Amino acid sequence: MFLSDSQIDCVFVKMSSSLQDKLKCFSVSVPAVPDGQYEVFVGSGYLRFLRAALQEQFAPRSPFVITDASLVKAGHWDAFRGGDDLSVFVIDPPGEVSKNMQTISAILEAMEGCLLGRDSLVIGLGGGTVGDMAGFAAAVFKRGVPVVHIPTTTVSQADSSIGGKTGVDSSQSKNAFGAFWQPAAVYMDTATLQTLDDVQYRAGLAESVKHAAIADEGFFAWLEEHTEPLLKRRTDALEHLACENCRIKASVVMEDPTEKNRRRILNYGHTIGHAVEALSGYTLLHGQAVAIGMTAAGWIEKEMGLAADDRLERIETLLKKLGLPTRIPPLYSPEQILSLLKLDKKALGRRPRFVLLEKLGKVLCQDGQWAVEVPENLIEQVLCRLTVQRS
Amino acid sequence: MFLSDSQIDCVFVKMSSSLQDKLKCFSVSVPAVPDGQYEVFVGSGYLRFLRAALQEQFAPRSPFVITDASLVKAGHWDAFRGGDDLSVFVIDPPGEVSKNMQTISAILEAMEGCLLGRDSLVIGLGGGTVGDMAGFAAAVFKRGVPVVHIPTTTVSQADSSIGGKTGVDSSQSKNAFGAFWQPAAVYMDTATLQTLDDVQYRAGLAESVKHAAIADEGFFAWLEEHTEPLLKRRTDALEHLACENCRIKASVVMEDPTEKNRRRILNYGHTIGHAVEALSGYTLLHGQAVAIGMTAAGWIEKEMGLAADDRLERIETLLKKLGLPTRIPPLYSPEQILSLLKLDKKALGRRPRFVLLEKLGKVLCQDGQWAVEVPENLIEQVLCRLTVQRS
Repeated sequence: MFLSDSQIDCVFVKMSSSLQDKLKCFSVSVPAVPDGQYEVFVGSGYLRFLRAALQEQFAPRSPFVITDASLVKAGHWDAFRGGDDLSVFVIDPPGEVSKNMQTISAILEAMEGCLLGRDSLVIGLGGGTVGDMAGFAAAVFKRGVPVVHIPTTTVSQADSSIGGKTGVDSSQSKNAFGAFWQPAAVYMDTATLQTLDDVQYRAGLAESVKHAAIADEGFFAWLEEHTEPLLKRRTDALEHLACENCRIKASVVMEDPTEKNRRRILNYGHTIGHAVEALSGYTLLHGQAVAIGMTAAGWIEKEMGLAADDRLERIETLLKKLGLPTRIPPLYSPEQILSLLKLDKKALGRRPRFVLLEKLGKVLCQDGQWAVEVPENLIEQVLCRLTVQRS
Repeated sequence: MFLSDSQIDCVFVKMSSSLQDKLKCFSVSVPAVPDGQYEVFVGSGYLRFLRAALQEQFAPRSPFVITDASLVKAGHWDAFRGGDDLSVFVIDPPGEVSKNMQTISAILEAMEGCLLGRDSLVIGLGGGTVGDMAGFAAAVFKRGVPVVHIPTTTVSQADSSIGGKTGVDSSQSKNAFGAFWQPAAVYMDTATLQTLDDVQYRAGLAESVKHAAIADEGFFAWLEEHTEPLLKRRTDALEHLACENCRIKASVVMEDPTEKNRRRILNYGHTIGHAVEALSGYTLLHGQAVAIGMTAAGWIEKEMGLAADDRLERIETLLKKLGLPTRIPPLYSPEQILSLLKLDKKALGRRPRFVLLEKLGKVLCQDGQWAVEVPENLIEQVLCRLTVQRS
């Protein structure tokens, strides 16, 4: 985090002039970091060949795998390691409930217990929570070692494995603490999706709907036409899905890797989404919460007079066909949700900001900002409308 | 962490060709980060004016101060805040015993409890442990907010507040987990050194001896000639000391901010230093441990035939005049120390590497490396020689 020269002069000038005369001043320059690149590979059925390829490529780095109990149960951990005895940390219980600083501490201590140094390689094998924690652990172990992601769920293949966001939840909010840490490479094997349970599988498709809604109407139409092969998990449909997601996600993060502005469009559906996800104690899956959040964003657009077309209806219909929720469970009050929105990372001065659509495939940009302020009473109105009434 | 194009091609090529045919590949580019700059201000007696200047400059950022119980006791916290009611986290007990992931978690949760967002400003007011934790918390809160350092001890003014190294200790080793996070500005008020107890004050002078030894024989001679005004904490001597340290530290970190190679010279005395510091359960202060480590490095140079001059004698004499230890307490065996050296961040393939001098004011560079491998038996021999015999 740096100040410009003029800002620095400003600090200096604003001190009383008698004080200024007494202070000596040294400048510390920090050299530029050159541009970088990593590759994302998409295919089907190659997990078992990957360990040897990684080992050869990253030698002499010592691998350390972070995975979770569901990957072990599904046999993917055994498929990856072959007969080898690799250093591993198995997150148990799997999922959001373990995505916290305590687990990060345990992972870091385990890595040091294996006598790993800066010459180690973290490999995250699993879904979004595994990837977020593997990336965060890699970012802070000995002040940073490389990480390779092997995402194995619909949500992580569509979204979280690309772009370098890492982190954990606080006791109050989602992804509150973390770092930007770009992976060295990402390997997606769509065959790993076959072992996901239906609820998890469908939830992750919400991120694909999000990508289509913010960036590509043609992809949105493809999703509408291919709900059946997608729900049947046909390999060709899964590979096409993964490629479209990679293309869209990569193009956005390349432009704004640390989310200064435009990358915020990926937060479409994530403002109210994160809040209801956190309030549910993570019993709502991330993708389910994002589906609710996208519907809420659509209603906000309507209330603000921004949506004269049928996009909200198309989004809701597609989400429903994919088995995703579009209403808020009657467990949380609008007030509870509103108070969490103030902790949202896009909030400024504790006022929440939303990513909204201009039309299907294009995000609304107001005054150069991709996340716009929405009046609190309007948010509350939409929350009331979307909350399922208790019978 | 990125691979070069040729390395990526290599991963791809090394997979079996039949597999390769089946994989689709996307490149994700990450744009370069431009160079940055921050300023270090040195003066005496201006702490009480600083809060208002910072508040004005960084508005509308919400400040969050991280300090510790000893700063509160010495009155510096009250001097800084004036009559204002600032958000603050007071580390208690102060010092290395609290420098761990648990404290970081508590700080981050406290920040979120204050409803702080990405538009906050972390201010680290204190010694090395406060600065290291304030920087780390800033680096990972909402994936990164700016930090300003106000170092108040000899060790933090000489060394740790400049250069962007942040972190905490593991259960086994020093500064094991952390991040590189450059400050937005650093403010040194040498008047804060007046309240330090003698042991802590003297310990921090070891880092000044280190800077002189690795980079500037003239500064070394100045230290030899000014031990008296330094030990009496005369303002002019303290300001000159701070300026010399800033100049040397800044010039090294500018060249290699993330310690790929040359920045390692700042680790002179820190290899065995960190090990005995950790083994002592941090009852040895950092500077005391570094003094022991520099003496050990000097003996290693002698044993390796690298030191025909009287530099070891001059370094030992100066350290002793400053009231610093040059022998290892009889509490830890050479085997214990050796096993910790394998966790050192400079170690490669679990073999420890040392920063050694070519002559006073210049570090030895071998085959382009500023940290060189030393045979284990030679390290052991030096450890035995330096360990005070039990009576």
